[in-house]
Amino acid sequence: MSLNLTTANGLEPATNGLEPAINGKEAANLHDLSEPFVDNLAGQLFLNEAFKIIVEEVLCKGTDVKQKVFSQLNSMSIHSTGSYRELFSFLSGHPRFFNQLFAGVDYHALAGRFLTEALNTNLYTYEVAPVFVLMELEVLRGLRQLVGWTEGDGLFCPGGSISNMYAMNLARYQLFPEVKSQGLWGLPRLTIFTSIESHYSVKKGAAFLGIGTDNIILVKVDDGGRMIPEDLDEKIKLAKSQGAVPLLVSCTAGTTVQGAFDPLDHIADVCEKHKLWMHVDAAWGGSVLFSKQHRHLMKGVERANSVAWNPHKMLTAGLQCSALLLQDTTNLLKKCHSANATYLFQQDKFYDVNLDLGDKSIQCSRKVDCVKLWLMWKAVGSSGLAKRVDRAFVHARYLVEQMKKREGFHLLHEPEFVNVCFWFIPPSIRGKEGNKDYQDRLAKVAPVIKERMIKEGTMMVGYQPLGNKVNFFRMVVFSPLLSQKDMDFFLDEIERLGKDL
Amino acid sequence: MSLNLTTANGLEPATNGLEPAINGKEAANLHDLSEPFVDNLAGQLFLNEAFKIIVEEVLCKGTDVKQKVFSQLNSMSIHSTGSYRELFSFLSGHPRFFNQLFAGVDYHALAGRFLTEALNTNLYTYEVAPVFVLMELEVLRGLRQLVGWTEGDGLFCPGGSISNMYAMNLARYQLFPEVKSQGLWGLPRLTIFTSIESHYSVKKGAAFLGIGTDNIILVKVDDGGRMIPEDLDEKIKLAKSQGAVPLLVSCTAGTTVQGAFDPLDHIADVCEKHKLWMHVDAAWGGSVLFSKQHRHLMKGVERANSVAWNPHKMLTAGLQCSALLLQDTTNLLKKCHSANATYLFQQDKFYDVNLDLGDKSIQCSRKVDCVKLWLMWKAVGSSGLAKRVDRAFVHARYLVEQMKKREGFHLLHEPEFVNVCFWFIPPSIRGKEGNKDYQDRLAKVAPVIKERMIKEGTMMVGYQPLGNKVNFFRMVVFSPLLSQKDMDFFLDEIERLGKDL
Repeated sequence: MSLNLTTANGLEPATNGLEPAINGKEAANLHDLSEPFVDNLAGQLFLNEAFKIIVEEVLCKGTDVKQKVFSQLNSMSIHSTGSYRELFSFLSGHPRFFNQLFAGVDYHALAGRFLTEALNTNLYTYEVAPVFVLMELEVLRGLRQLVGWTEGDGLFCPGGSISNMYAMNLARYQLFPEVKSQGLWGLPRLTIFTSIESHYSVKKGAAFLGIGTDNIILVKVDDGGRMIPEDLDEKIKLAKSQGAVPLLVSCTAGTTVQGAFDPLDHIADVCEKHKLWMHVDAAWGGSVLFSKQHRHLMKGVERANSVAWNPHKMLTAGLQCSALLLQDTTNLLKKCHSANATYLFQQDKFYDVNLDLGDKSIQCSRKVDCVKLWLMWKAVGSSGLAKRVDRAFVHARYLVEQMKKREGFHLLHEPEFVNVCFWFIPPSIRGKEGNKDYQDRLAKVAPVIKERMIKEGTMMVGYQPLGNKVNFFRMVVFSPLLSQKDMDFFLDEIERLGKDL
Repeated sequence: MSLNLTTANGLEPATNGLEPAINGKEAANLHDLSEPFVDNLAGQLFLNEAFKIIVEEVLCKGTDVKQKVFSQLNSMSIHSTGSYRELFSFLSGHPRFFNQLFAGVDYHALAGRFLTEALNTNLYTYEVAPVFVLMELEVLRGLRQLVGWTEGDGLFCPGGSISNMYAMNLARYQLFPEVKSQGLWGLPRLTIFTSIESHYSVKKGAAFLGIGTDNIILVKVDDGGRMIPEDLDEKIKLAKSQGAVPLLVSCTAGTTVQGAFDPLDHIADVCEKHKLWMHVDAAWGGSVLFSKQHRHLMKGVERANSVAWNPHKMLTAGLQCSALLLQDTTNLLKKCHSANATYLFQQDKFYDVNLDLGDKSIQCSRKVDCVKLWLMWKAVGSSGLAKRVDRAFVHARYLVEQMKKREGFHLLHEPEFVNVCFWFIPPSIRGKEGNKDYQDRLAKVAPVIKERMIKEGTMMVGYQPLGNKVNFFRMVVFSPLLSQKDMDFFLDEIERLGKDL
């Protein structure tokens, strides 16, 4: 396989027999309009072949622990030629892929995604997506109910970062509706508050919306990574005293690294006191709302103005599936974002034009992201999804207990969620915390172990520094494909790859 | 089928046998970690069944002109129960779906989309998407080459609206890098220029970025809907005289309604003279660059700073596939958008971290949108895609000629592209242009014909007013599934549905 476009091979095995047929068809006289330009039958045969390969290479092999998570990285130059199998050189559905906040596979969701792709429609108007418009409304209603709202609004967005931007824009518009037409120039300087361990999208959002990253005020966190409400209160007062207008607090439910949940109820008190928009970035942690046992982590979320929640993460709905949920019932989302294009949102249509959702969005074409979640939810049920969440906590607990039994694993903090953050201390530096090069040497351990695991392809896990803490691993355990032997393997493998460091 | 989440049916036929197995598995003791929580084999059987249904219902029936484009709309309440076939009640791949700027199906692209969904990875770092990072770079290089650039930068974005926003943010950052940290407050008022017939996303973008819709200056167009460069020049001078700083001109290559191409070469002269960022919104029209015969419509595009081009439109790559292309070689995209999150973009990785594309983006998780285009392009070749574009022009020409032969069809303007805009004049008002209620009666024709065609499900075409022109149809012809009989049917059907009006 060559990635170069100038060679026209395609997926060789599948196209071998089919391509001449299709190309032959397309080579027909351009001006002979008597037949369609493509041959549906040949196309469908190709798709059947491709489907078989996908099932075999991605789903059977890709979920088999005996296969590598990663292969052939070194040969991946843009001009390489080789087998189409290189397309499958990286398998994020593999049970030993622990690198990110997405993993695993849900087959109902995947069927929903194939269906979405085949139907290829667009959520901007009811007339081109009647079922999916109703489905999106229903799924959003279901998610809002878990937040604790019987009414409200919302939208599926292309990822949590953009959901967070929507929240900022809504808060700004609610306070100063003139911003939509006049821009920021006539307004006082606005400030946004978020914890020092919040997601980087808050920064990106403030820059993109013209607010500026300097106007994000970072609030301190406790040892577990949770925002300290008293510090928030003080920083809001300070900003006011400096002439700024505090706009929004972006709380985090499940921080990226430590998996910390900000104390929403206390933060809601502060927001109420100062009349600030309360946004909860629950992209990662939101799924705990399914679990009776763990939803207390988000106590107070029902007091928020907006919530961003990505079912493509813990629920394995598949990228992208990111819901923005709003408590608002005044049609703020549409007022803030509408442009009233007469060529798309005609008001003289014969159906209820409120079902044309598109003008709530900053996008025009908007991908249908609700089907996969709807289908999975219908099939597994709320209780099934709750069990998956509970099971992930059990996995994390198991992992923590095993780490405590082994030498060389040192937890950053007792985990609150399913992020297990730890240092692996290789034998050569164990007990030498007092040495002045200890931190420097420890900082180099995780990158080397990571390089070795990628080159061998046995598993994938992330590492990072955090504040004054040098590089440590962040293990996340939530894939429904995981079992105990994967976690034992993980611990053994870290020991094996790091024992000589 | 019920859209309500509280009944747990799923796709009944496919889940009938499978669901108990999956649910039985999931009901296992949460604390028994010896086995995975989901059964891969049962899941794969479900997916196989779902694939068969998708091929049968969406691809075989959905591309068959004997099937309805639209069915069962009236029964689509959110609490309806019925067959899972209601999921397929709307078929945008149908040859007689002419409603939007997307249509048809390409089977190679669809295979690429299934592959993308099954692999479910994320373009933010090379380590989780090694092949696809290289593939995105290769596809962007190929698209830039068609624009006329040997170097440059770019990114796939979730739709053309967001691509257009990127261009605005880049222009702003290039002129005033301090905007990223300080926001707009310290800056002079910025203005954006675009034609009166440009896409509504320019408005949405200006509002979202804090620039404000009042700071969009609308430039006049000629009869065909093309921006008038002399008016642009005057409006830039006027804005300057009013103390504003002109920032960017958003030209359109292929307007939404008329399919007009702004005269890029002349506009480039004006942009050069005033030192403005030149952006080309070629979301719809960009694909003419494949055609030797028609690429002259975009003469001058190589002088632009940025181009937005959606292969999901004319090339039928499937939603979403939207490229932002930049001439810049100074890493502006990354400088403007980076947040340098240490937990994702670690600098001590063992590979070239410039391959971690994520910090160029305003998103964090970013869907892989390049595979479908790459696979189609490899299989069909540049010449095959060129033929599809050329063929679409032949279709449009045929349609125009036929309209001229029939009574009652009145073209808005001789089309420059594949948008054929026309009024259908029903027999009752033919020749009565002088009557004072003529325009009012004409305005009501298109909505009624549209309502009738949807209720009968025979075809779908859009209508809209434009400026002082009352409701007219916009027919777009580019699906590779189209043939002459579909166009003849279209004209007959408009006549049939409108003859009594």
